[in-house]
Amino acid sequence: MQYTHSDILLQERRFRGNLINSLGGFKSALLIGTKSEEGHENLAIFSSFFHIGADPALCGVVVRPTTPGLNTLHHILSTAHYTLNHIAPSFYQQAHQCSAKYDDGVSEFEEVGLTPLYKPGIQAPFVGERRIQFACELVQTLDIALNGTTILIGQIIHIEVPDELVGADGFIDIEKASSVTCSGLDSYHLTQKIGRLSYAKTDAPVRLI
Amino acid sequence: MQYTHSDILLQERRFRGNLINSLGGFKSALLIGTKSEEGHENLAIFSSFFHIGADPALCGVVVRPTTPGLNTLHHILSTAHYTLNHIAPSFYQQAHQCSAKYDDGVSEFEEVGLTPLYKPGIQAPFVGERRIQFACELVQTLDIALNGTTILIGQIIHIEVPDELVGADGFIDIEKASSVTCSGLDSYHLTQKIGRLSYAKTDAPVRLI
Repeated sequence: MQYTHSDILLQERRFRGNLINSLGGFKSALLIGTKSEEGHENLAIFSSFFHIGADPALCGVVVRPTTPGLNTLHHILSTAHYTLNHIAPSFYQQAHQCSAKYDDGVSEFEEVGLTPLYKPGIQAPFVGERRIQFACELVQTLDIALNGTTILIGQIIHIEVPDELVGADGFIDIEKASSVTCSGLDSYHLTQKIGRLSYAKTDAPVRLI
Repeated sequence: MQYTHSDILLQERRFRGNLINSLGGFKSALLIGTKSEEGHENLAIFSSFFHIGADPALCGVVVRPTTPGLNTLHHILSTAHYTLNHIAPSFYQQAHQCSAKYDDGVSEFEEVGLTPLYKPGIQAPFVGERRIQFACELVQTLDIALNGTTILIGQIIHIEVPDELVGADGFIDIEKASSVTCSGLDSYHLTQKIGRLSYAKTDAPVRLI
């Protein structure tokens, strides 16, 4: 099936949403925890996380100008802190439920039954059910005028990962952690390793490591 | 294992690179094809793709200011067109090999043994070994001053997906297509579906669809 630019524009809204959301490949599925200055806790699921660099440790996430992303955005703009928590199969339905449009001031933690957990120096709540998580401090915002979304650039200020998942070279075995990946708006998956490959050089083929 | 902000800064460069790259979850692995105005073809692997919106259909990718990303960047800035191609297990080693630092003017297609394929109206080459791919036209660039990277925002102008993968609701079954996901800098994985979930509402639990 081929879709030209005008074909894409002509699709029914929901069809196009599913098509474009699943087109780009598998995505990171993370729960972002925030707290407002008034003390309201918020937990939202995001699939738009991306790596920017390791030194300094920077990452980005796209926030849409609609509920529930809007609460996350407001909390981060006012407090600068947010947590990012991997999702396990044991609570992926609760994670997905966080995308419902709860009223302002309602805590998704309470509604879906996940536990806010605090750590010293970080204002935003982590997800207590998981020990593979990190926290960011907002360092830049970028506006995408074409659709009103905002890219938040965060510096990673705290990491927690179980010891047994971190290799001698720093690689975290997130498959062993049963971290969930997602496709499109609503499809959740585990993974099965094909292989790790050596650093690619022009004068030798890559090999399994 | 916990790493504070200063712990992260103190890690050895390669350890930190692996740690931070694998921390954020599974990523989309895509081959980006470009062609310079002089006719040089380029193929580079990227794991920083992210979805921005479906209407208009927008996506982003982070480009580092080093080879081979730099060639991709220059080609896109001058021609505006680029293709994004899913990776299959049958050629994931060739895809990874594209990250080697080949000299300017050398075609990664030739070096790794993948086939450039052209379609009407799109200046950039697709990967002929795969029929799940799309093309973008550059619409915005955003600079991340903190580490010298550039975010390219593209509008999706062409999609090709096998008929049997596209559901009635527009969802593309990229697991059935054996599309590869990656973790960190060098780990490649297939996926295993847990479930698709219904649109989340505040007054009813989500269910499998």
